[in-house]
Amino acid sequence: MPSLPPAEIGAPFSEIDTPALLIDLDAMERNMALLAERARAMGVRLRPHAKTHKSAIIAARQAALGAVGVCCQKVAEAEALAAGGVRDILVSNEVVGARKLRRLAALARQIRIGVCVDHFEQIALIDAAARDAGSTIDVLVEIDVGGRRCGVTPGPMAATFAAEIARSANLRFGGLQAYHGRAQHLRTPAERKAAIGAAQQGVVDTVAHLKAAGFACTTIGGAGTGTFMLEGASGVWNELQAGSYIFMDADYARNVSDEGANAPRFEHALFVLATVMSATSADQVVVDAGHKALSNDSGFPDVWQRPGLAYQRPSDEHGVIIVAPGVAAPAWGDKLLLVPGHCDPTVNLHDWYVGVRDFGTPRARVETLWPIDARGALG
Amino acid sequence: MPSLPPAEIGAPFSEIDTPALLIDLDAMERNMALLAERARAMGVRLRPHAKTHKSAIIAARQAALGAVGVCCQKVAEAEALAAGGVRDILVSNEVVGARKLRRLAALARQIRIGVCVDHFEQIALIDAAARDAGSTIDVLVEIDVGGRRCGVTPGPMAATFAAEIARSANLRFGGLQAYHGRAQHLRTPAERKAAIGAAQQGVVDTVAHLKAAGFACTTIGGAGTGTFMLEGASGVWNELQAGSYIFMDADYARNVSDEGANAPRFEHALFVLATVMSATSADQVVVDAGHKALSNDSGFPDVWQRPGLAYQRPSDEHGVIIVAPGVAAPAWGDKLLLVPGHCDPTVNLHDWYVGVRDFGTPRARVETLWPIDARGALG
Repeated sequence: MPSLPPAEIGAPFSEIDTPALLIDLDAMERNMALLAERARAMGVRLRPHAKTHKSAIIAARQAALGAVGVCCQKVAEAEALAAGGVRDILVSNEVVGARKLRRLAALARQIRIGVCVDHFEQIALIDAAARDAGSTIDVLVEIDVGGRRCGVTPGPMAATFAAEIARSANLRFGGLQAYHGRAQHLRTPAERKAAIGAAQQGVVDTVAHLKAAGFACTTIGGAGTGTFMLEGASGVWNELQAGSYIFMDADYARNVSDEGANAPRFEHALFVLATVMSATSADQVVVDAGHKALSNDSGFPDVWQRPGLAYQRPSDEHGVIIVAPGVAAPAWGDKLLLVPGHCDPTVNLHDWYVGVRDFGTPRARVETLWPIDARGALG
Repeated sequence: MPSLPPAEIGAPFSEIDTPALLIDLDAMERNMALLAERARAMGVRLRPHAKTHKSAIIAARQAALGAVGVCCQKVAEAEALAAGGVRDILVSNEVVGARKLRRLAALARQIRIGVCVDHFEQIALIDAAARDAGSTIDVLVEIDVGGRRCGVTPGPMAATFAAEIARSANLRFGGLQAYHGRAQHLRTPAERKAAIGAAQQGVVDTVAHLKAAGFACTTIGGAGTGTFMLEGASGVWNELQAGSYIFMDADYARNVSDEGANAPRFEHALFVLATVMSATSADQVVVDAGHKALSNDSGFPDVWQRPGLAYQRPSDEHGVIIVAPGVAAPAWGDKLLLVPGHCDPTVNLHDWYVGVRDFGTPRARVETLWPIDARGALG
């Protein structure tokens, strides 16, 4: 069963128990409006990645701002979001295994479902699952545009796949999945431009082969929070899949921009609230949030607006806050806001979002408690 | 809501969907019997740490082998295990915050509850919570025996704490919490002996101060899977708190022993089963288990019994398996067993244990599906 929520709706900020996963609702809403506006301005569709938030409520808010649907990575995520009302989901990933394909095909009876392939024999298996379920599934060919993860080599192979998809009775050829995950966190604009430029060459080449074979791409999807301005302005990609922009995290904040006043300035909107549970020395204190409340795979969290405090040496249920010389140590019982190093897997550790209005002001209060619908949806 | 379990009871191994958290039941049972026997032989009590398994069913099996109760780190964990029938729980950690103390004191009406302190004013707060709930709580003084995390300095201060606890109407002085977490993963026996030897000096000194002030320690608790033979043989500690021994992990497997035939040889009993979901090049394949299915804080998982395969470059939902030159790559659709780098936070990512009997044999089948009761119990 899910845990009890760490707060009650209407409670003042001071009454939120810890560890808690907080959303600064105002900041999140600004982030959502900003990306929606940028996508509109660039003339591309927005299909935000729900692997970040795993929430049907947030997906509905993204749809209200013009998103055409969401992406998921897992069938179980798609099931959880569909149960919460989402009607158009691209599983931007390969789905392998008979049980998962049965579930995916069943879901496609109720909502629009897309999925990716990079293995030729998989096409017939998806087709058979859709046939058995009496549904139709959009299938996109994933190409490896530089991430060295999934995806076929850009070029002629995608046309072979497209032909096989098109001749499958229960499938529709949906286009290309062309996401460059590794480019998102390259630190300098020059590195990111080089990576997406190379990816673009691969997409253009693949599209030309598809066109020569008679196939048009309804969707050319990709892009994340670190590079979407490049894909969006390319004239090649037509659907952006950014996810982290709604929350941001400490790792994305380390990216450098060269766009000046034009840079989309997303704000930190996701925090883990922690309590100083031990304070026995002047140079450090201990908080009640460790590996089980924060994913530290992309670096440790920043301590929000507390210069001289550094989160270090996490263990499962503890984090040590190192206090710089000359800086006042937090007191026993104080609460600290931590900006997660990596938002997506941190969200997955929690059962509830505590949505705070007027965050950071004396009026701050709990406005919403949202279940993290697809938390733990691994399959 | 919890996810669907990835298998059905009675199913053959081949029908387990992925990612799944598997227990080799035979190996786990041997591990449990081995530590129980060692504790008996050394004449010390066993109170295994349930932060590892978070399961009331496993706690009951530990009790059946002689454990006096379990440890938890969080009130919410204690609630989940108490709901599953556990009757004696030490929260081997500080509990800070009025709401948590209310819940802890309420729980102490139903089962035996202990908790640790390292902050003097906290004693009155726990006493008040117990008074309001009409319960009695055992309070142990945590001393910092080298971990530089929580705990007061060994020596006279614990006697001041003990006196305050003893004069509190709703508390009982329970003894000392003396756990050296950092010592568990020191690689060489000499390093571990030196660390636990230094810890022992602190415990002996503290016990002497307590004795001089008229206080006896019912419990002197500590030790983990990496060092329990040292604490157990010390004649000082009387309650062992090891947790990971039931499962082991890749990080514990890197510890070196010098005990020869006498070494307690715990077996790997916990695995994440993953599917090869993409295989587009000869030198690597991609599996469907990333940061959300495996905690990589203590290193990446080992690929079980597949020399030449190395798990690398995890992302949220993917892991890349690097194939050494000359080694046959796993085929698309193959399943691989991964030994988690760190068992405790990996368990916390899953909703279900899939318990497998005759693991690794052609007769392997799903015998049990156990909910991970305290999964996500952060507060």
